[in-house]
Amino acid sequence: MTPTVDILRTSHVEYRVSDLERARAFYVDLVGFVETGRDADHVYLRGLEDRYHHCLVLTRAPSPGVGHVAFRVRTEGDLEALADLAREAGLFHRWIEAGTETGVGRALRVRDPFGFPVEFVHAVEPAAWRLQDYAAYRGAAVMRLDHVNYLTPDIEAAARWYMDRLGFACSECTVSYGPDGVERLWGAWLRRKQTSHDLAIANGRGPAFHHASFIAHSTETLLHVADVLAASGFVANLERGPGRHGTTNAFFLYVRDPDGNRFELFTGDYLVADPDWEPVKWDLEDPRRATFWGAPAPPRWFNEAMAAYDWETGEPVPVREPRLPDRPRAVADP
Amino acid sequence: MTPTVDILRTSHVEYRVSDLERARAFYVDLVGFVETGRDADHVYLRGLEDRYHHCLVLTRAPSPGVGHVAFRVRTEGDLEALADLAREAGLFHRWIEAGTETGVGRALRVRDPFGFPVEFVHAVEPAAWRLQDYAAYRGAAVMRLDHVNYLTPDIEAAARWYMDRLGFACSECTVSYGPDGVERLWGAWLRRKQTSHDLAIANGRGPAFHHASFIAHSTETLLHVADVLAASGFVANLERGPGRHGTTNAFFLYVRDPDGNRFELFTGDYLVADPDWEPVKWDLEDPRRATFWGAPAPPRWFNEAMAAYDWETGEPVPVREPRLPDRPRAVADP
Amino acid sequence: MTPTVDILRTSHVEYRVSDLERARAFYVDLVGFVETGRDADHVYLRGLEDRYHHCLVLTRAPSPGVGHVAFRVRTEGDLEALADLAREAGLFHRWIEAGTETGVGRALRVRDPFGFPVEFVHAVEPAAWRLQDYAAYRGAAVMRLDHVNYLTPDIEAAARWYMDRLGFACSECTVSYGPDGVERLWGAWLRRKQTSHDLAIANGRGPAFHHASFIAHSTETLLHVADVLAASGFVANLERGPGRHGTTNAFFLYVRDPDGNRFELFTGDYLVADPDWEPVKWDLEDPRRATFWGAPAPPRWFNEAMAAYDWETGEPVPVREPRLPDRPRAVADP
Amino acid sequence: MTPTVDILRTSHVEYRVSDLERARAFYVDLVGFVETGRDADHVYLRGLEDRYHHCLVLTRAPSPGVGHVAFRVRTEGDLEALADLAREAGLFHRWIEAGTETGVGRALRVRDPFGFPVEFVHAVEPAAWRLQDYAAYRGAAVMRLDHVNYLTPDIEAAARWYMDRLGFACSECTVSYGPDGVERLWGAWLRRKQTSHDLAIANGRGPAFHHASFIAHSTETLLHVADVLAASGFVANLERGPGRHGTTNAFFLYVRDPDGNRFELFTGDYLVADPDWEPVKWDLEDPRRATFWGAPAPPRWFNEAMAAYDWETGEPVPVREPRLPDRPRAVADP
Repeated sequence: MTPTVDILRTSHVEYRVSDLERARAFYVDLVGFVETGRDADHVYLRGLEDRYHHCLVLTRAPSPGVGHVAFRVRTEGDLEALADLAREAGLFHRWIEAGTETGVGRALRVRDPFGFPVEFVHAVEPAAWRLQDYAAYRGAAVMRLDHVNYLTPDIEAAARWYMDRLGFACSECTVSYGPDGVERLWGAWLRRKQTSHDLAIANGRGPAFHHASFIAHSTETLLHVADVLAASGFVANLERGPGRHGTTNAFFLYVRDPDGNRFELFTGDYLVADPDWEPVKWDLEDPRRATFWGAPAPPRWFNEAMAAYDWETGEPVPVREPRLPDRPRAVADP
Repeated sequence: MTPTVDILRTSHVEYRVSDLERARAFYVDLVGFVETGRDADHVYLRGLEDRYHHCLVLTRAPSPGVGHVAFRVRTEGDLEALADLAREAGLFHRWIEAGTETGVGRALRVRDPFGFPVEFVHAVEPAAWRLQDYAAYRGAAVMRLDHVNYLTPDIEAAARWYMDRLGFACSECTVSYGPDGVERLWGAWLRRKQTSHDLAIANGRGPAFHHASFIAHSTETLLHVADVLAASGFVANLERGPGRHGTTNAFFLYVRDPDGNRFELFTGDYLVADPDWEPVKWDLEDPRRATFWGAPAPPRWFNEAMAAYDWETGEPVPVREPRLPDRPRAVADP
Repeated sequence: MTPTVDILRTSHVEYRVSDLERARAFYVDLVGFVETGRDADHVYLRGLEDRYHHCLVLTRAPSPGVGHVAFRVRTEGDLEALADLAREAGLFHRWIEAGTETGVGRALRVRDPFGFPVEFVHAVEPAAWRLQDYAAYRGAAVMRLDHVNYLTPDIEAAARWYMDRLGFACSECTVSYGPDGVERLWGAWLRRKQTSHDLAIANGRGPAFHHASFIAHSTETLLHVADVLAASGFVANLERGPGRHGTTNAFFLYVRDPDGNRFELFTGDYLVADPDWEPVKWDLEDPRRATFWGAPAPPRWFNEAMAAYDWETGEPVPVREPRLPDRPRAVADP
Repeated sequence: MTPTVDILRTSHVEYRVSDLERARAFYVDLVGFVETGRDADHVYLRGLEDRYHHCLVLTRAPSPGVGHVAFRVRTEGDLEALADLAREAGLFHRWIEAGTETGVGRALRVRDPFGFPVEFVHAVEPAAWRLQDYAAYRGAAVMRLDHVNYLTPDIEAAARWYMDRLGFACSECTVSYGPDGVERLWGAWLRRKQTSHDLAIANGRGPAFHHASFIAHSTETLLHVADVLAASGFVANLERGPGRHGTTNAFFLYVRDPDGNRFELFTGDYLVADPDWEPVKWDLEDPRRATFWGAPAPPRWFNEAMAAYDWETGEPVPVREPRLPDRPRAVADP
């Protein structure tokens, strides 16, 4: 089936925080986002390479988690096509008026077939490019949003749907071999823009949100932000890394914000300019897959995820257990 | 006019060298290309990130210069569309049978309206990905071909043609102000893939080829290859840099190979995933434009270009003088 | 007591390996040592910054471990003073003729009061400086030997002896607080040359040798060598890191060679040019002490040490258990 | 002759600036010094690695230049020995009471035999170590003062005097070959602490002060500070580099402050822990000597120096022309 929509890239994410000022200080002064603006209930952040209003909005909320995730499409017509697709598939969806979210035009909010709340937008407000404003670089010198990472017990169907219906292409995948010796899809790294991915979907307790990932300026700024956070009282917020993933070759650091929301800082994957790119396949049990240097992830990286909030109910999306193992055997059980 | 062809990216370049073995040692052992193969008259090179046969072919030839430049298109149908376009525009063009160039399928060779010989291909032979074969990293750890750079006295028309007829988009441009105060286009950085550019066209004596540019793994490997070349008897081959361009923000090094062919090593530009990217505009006389840190380029960087060889005659393409100044005033005249 | 000997620095270490050729390939081709020479039973290695014959000698032996550790003294007279000191203190010691170890002059071998076999030398054979021979850089681009690390149950007395009798100065120390609330020395980072240390002594099962540490060219080459080893079949040999120690601020990687011998690659400590440097004090339980970013060391880093071989008997030195805890509480017990 | 004084290292320098606030903003916010304190006429700066009050003091003054240069000695007795030496040699000298310069104890100011005003101190006030206060890193992340660089027409005698009378050792030297083919000393890199140098003396119009050099945290922060200064309106203050010196292997950047005072940012030389280090010798005309990558220094780097102010008169020290050429032939004449 040929997709009829043209998604450009992951656009922005919303993180729920209890204390806006504390969160702003963390994300801007230490981690190195650029502040575009704020209002009573939000702080709008972008990266130094961004030319749009925000790629991360912090929203005052009583509980942490991800408010929403948005993808940008090429035209307003693509939004209409998505509404058609949702209608035909019987998916809950809702139009949001332009400006409901500062800096963002008309948006379509959809509950995907697996329970994830996903937003699509076309119009986004321009903002100044800060790439060469080097005196503003802080911490990791965040460049832009790269991708989001979902957990679902429906990995096979979910990957299929995003590829067949929304036009994502697969850059890499992880497979798991059961006691029956049968190979099953465990995770998929899916792209729209020409990098390794915009959306990673992995097997796990879900639907849940694992992390959003932002590009750090360089290997050096990624190491530097680890030093900055450790030096500033946030050593316990450094969850995993710095290290290199085998998958996508990314140099990574996983951080928890003061509310416990998880994000990744990331650099060092590759360009995929050719549509005939053959997916790279990894075995879940390959020690180099998760960390190229062999060190297993800490258990809490697998044990904990972020709540996603349903468009319709406003409540956290109920989760189900996966049937495949949710982690490599080398990582201690929960 | 809507282009009817879909160019994916710059595909490969051919450099003419007098001594294949000497050139191979230079490009592979010192600069850090990967050798895919060789035959009596050619050495085929790719980058560590490449998954295709070659992005640079060295061809034994009595004089230096660029044999040809090729762009990859999405389908064989795009080649047909390009042949139609050439026919309608009365441009010299010729089909080349698959395998005439090892690793490359059927190709269409066209003389563009400004005299440049340009090849288009779709089918390219796969080759192993070496991105994580870290023990093979040498010198700059070349990742892939990024762009080519042309000189022409017809900059305005040339940029127009590549944008309107071939679908290139403009990421950045340089303008020059004459004594009349009128702003004129001096250079254009044009992209197909989602990086700052695939093709840069600048005002100058031409049609001539200024350089091909290859991605270095990192700022560190780019500095390292300068040290490696200086340590290996090639200090005079380091023409310019390492430094940062204002345009595209690239960290660069210009190198001459043992035959005098020029190439750039390059890292640090940005992703352009949004089609509505507003071009960045620079003044030719802004000291930070050419080198962000202010140091002017050495005169020979402006004085010398590489010959392009005409498809029809096999002779170097005749050149004409530009009407605009060919360099900023801060660079000494030839 | 004023020491009467002038030790310059850690000079070299001897590692016992079962397969010289395999070890040479590992240390030279992958890790990035420079080979000075070899004979039937030894391979002599130095760093790119070294101007002497070797800082690491690999010796064919039926079991792994450290053959010996040597310090360089300023004059031959310092060797005589050390022999006097050993005689007065009743320590086993023995003169070794010049040339017994290739590249090394007359040596004095002493069993220190805690059971460690220690060698002292003055005369060492010069070798070419390779610092600017950049084409020879491989892997971590090893620069020089930095320090050695001992484990002993006699940490307080051992640190005292090296400071009072051999003139070492303390750059940093780690203390442990028992249930009685009393502060006890747990580890000492001692220097002779003007860096953070030449000799680290820590509490643990011993006398045993934990590791020798070699300077990597940069943060980038230290990350690169982790990638190189993982890419070359040695992922299981990456024991800990890359990471940053709180103590000494070092960016580190711990590696096991194919025989299981442990060494550290290290960069990023500091200069201590002032004799009145006040030691930095760390609490054993501070999560940033061992790894500034909080991740605890893997248990085997604490569970396993290298055998030291007694000068007199040629047998592994017998070890005793420590009375203080041998690791922070955050590291799982053996 | 055996020196009777024990100089530890270059201690601090005083730069004269017309606008303290402007200078503070430049050195602290952009370049990355740490501010220890200030008073009506001074701002006291140190590096992140420093544990003493200042390594650079900015003093309000009507004209730029270097107020003074100081070396730290091991004991107060060394100051007495230096006073004896000055008396015997008939050199102008003067004691300065403790606290005359904030953070500095009793000082001895001497006019050396070549006209340079040199201060010696022992007591210096401690200050907090900021090495691991990573959130305070800005710009180059200045670590510490490394060395000072003098110009003199008396290069041979000056190098001799500092080595024979003050105990400096030679790490590297540059020689020049006249039309007579005779080799003459052109420059000397002299050390007390265990790095490549504390004091460089080069042939030139003098006695004059060429620059003080401060250690940048890394290659990356040195590149970063070039970007920061270019982005902040100081592109014309980037005088030379970033680049690598052949001599000492240093990665360098020469900067002019808003008053025109020159300083170097520097990283990447080596440790010299062995007193029998053989000096490295360079030919003035070797293109890799000054810049390892071959690019000649801009003429103003040779044409302009900083005034030194005489202890006795308070006036700029009168200068004389050198007899040897003051620059390599590849650098254009003044």
